[in-house]
Amino acid sequence: MESLNLLVNGEPTTSVAVADRGLQFGDGLFESVRVIDGQARYWDSHMQRLARGCERLRLPIPGAQVLAKDRDRLIRDEPNGVLKILWTAGPGGRGYTRALPLFPTRVMIRYPLPMLPKSWCELGLTLRFCDIRLGINPGLAGIKHLNRLEQVLAAAESNDPAIHEGLLMDTQDRVIEGIISNVFVIKNNVVYTPSLANCGVEGIMREHVLEALPALGLQAHIGDLTKDDCLTADEMFVCNSVRGILPVACLESRRFQQRAVTQRIQEHLSEPPPVLWAPS
Amino acid sequence: MESLNLLVNGEPTTSVAVADRGLQFGDGLFESVRVIDGQARYWDSHMQRLARGCERLRLPIPGAQVLAKDRDRLIRDEPNGVLKILWTAGPGGRGYTRALPLFPTRVMIRYPLPMLPKSWCELGLTLRFCDIRLGINPGLAGIKHLNRLEQVLAAAESNDPAIHEGLLMDTQDRVIEGIISNVFVIKNNVVYTPSLANCGVEGIMREHVLEALPALGLQAHIGDLTKDDCLTADEMFVCNSVRGILPVACLESRRFQQRAVTQRIQEHLSEPPPVLWAPS
Repeated sequence: MESLNLLVNGEPTTSVAVADRGLQFGDGLFESVRVIDGQARYWDSHMQRLARGCERLRLPIPGAQVLAKDRDRLIRDEPNGVLKILWTAGPGGRGYTRALPLFPTRVMIRYPLPMLPKSWCELGLTLRFCDIRLGINPGLAGIKHLNRLEQVLAAAESNDPAIHEGLLMDTQDRVIEGIISNVFVIKNNVVYTPSLANCGVEGIMREHVLEALPALGLQAHIGDLTKDDCLTADEMFVCNSVRGILPVACLESRRFQQRAVTQRIQEHLSEPPPVLWAPS
Repeated sequence: MESLNLLVNGEPTTSVAVADRGLQFGDGLFESVRVIDGQARYWDSHMQRLARGCERLRLPIPGAQVLAKDRDRLIRDEPNGVLKILWTAGPGGRGYTRALPLFPTRVMIRYPLPMLPKSWCELGLTLRFCDIRLGINPGLAGIKHLNRLEQVLAAAESNDPAIHEGLLMDTQDRVIEGIISNVFVIKNNVVYTPSLANCGVEGIMREHVLEALPALGLQAHIGDLTKDDCLTADEMFVCNSVRGILPVACLESRRFQQRAVTQRIQEHLSEPPPVLWAPS
């Protein structure tokens, strides 16, 4: 028997109503949670971000126990994977206006853990700058909402397998994040990461990196980051909940030789290993 | 027997796969077509905009005959309504990257024609300025894509039944459009409408208004429009495919007394009547 990998409002169905506002307008939120050995890593942080997103989008906050129950059902038979949670405004009519009360749709899907080449961790990633820019919109900045066309178009720009991630700038030429990751640069032992006040997603891994810095005696600086700040940094890394922390070896024509600070942060946050590495 | 009002890939189902990229990322487009007496108004213009959107989002263009067949099936039993077409990138995996080839999802839904108070046409609408701003993103500007959280949040700002539409500005204080309409102002017999190069939707009704102006001896100006330009205009109207052209009576504290130019444009494009007016 195939193990359960999908729940919609707690039921093992594979579809949602066409009328769902998640489909019609992207009216909802999502989370991607890494599960290792039956443990949903940073679960509480994901739940907190989901709740913050609900407040911003004026959605009801999903019940913690209901989500935990879905989670436990999906990882019972398969204790490693990625849980993707979708929380939408539920079914609605033709117009943008939500009819209240809402009956949100709760989706949880278990995907396999991605098998990434070991070289990505050992040698570091190769990054490019994307052409498409992130729109500046403080009203939607920071949260992990379902309006993701910017990321879809950024991902579609390149199918070069030698490029592992794309860096996104906003329409005012500030570097904001990777397509699927947050970005950090290190210069003179100071750790810089872009402000996400105008656009971008406040990643859970980013949050934990920032929290870890004081214990490592490292100073953090959250602010504007230019293309040039990235190209002239000593070190660079990207991070997300699923892949953990990955060093950057190349950004366009720039090669990063140093990795000492990145490694200290990786070691500090290392248990369990960042991803399930395939022997390459 | 209830008449058919929903087709998914030509089948009378009411759901789409959870894995659909329309739900996961808003990876798709839509159209809302007014149908009067069995005639889908401005059908060719809607098809052309859909095709332009597909090019911008790198989606395959839906077959014209297939969409026409869906349309005819849905309006056979009910010749008045609004057809909403959704065209998504179809089912996919967890990530932003599309697996090629795509197998797009085609949805067509027939909704009833909205019954609007007669007073909206006779007396004009009351408008407010929305708080939320449209993000500036030339990569997504103009097309009718499924990332509509800005409009959803704008619509959720007010539940005052005396306010009929909200005007959206971009993050640089330019007036762009209404939540569900395009906007025109008239000053000294010149017709102004905002440029949609940075954000906003290129409405089909807007297109036909612009095309009609030369025949009426009216000069059109497409460019930046400020809040003050709106408040000091002689006349103002909003338009969309479903509601047609509606005069604006009030914008915040400003009352518009004139309507001569709006009426000339309405009359020029009037057949059939803009909406099915309820006797109020």
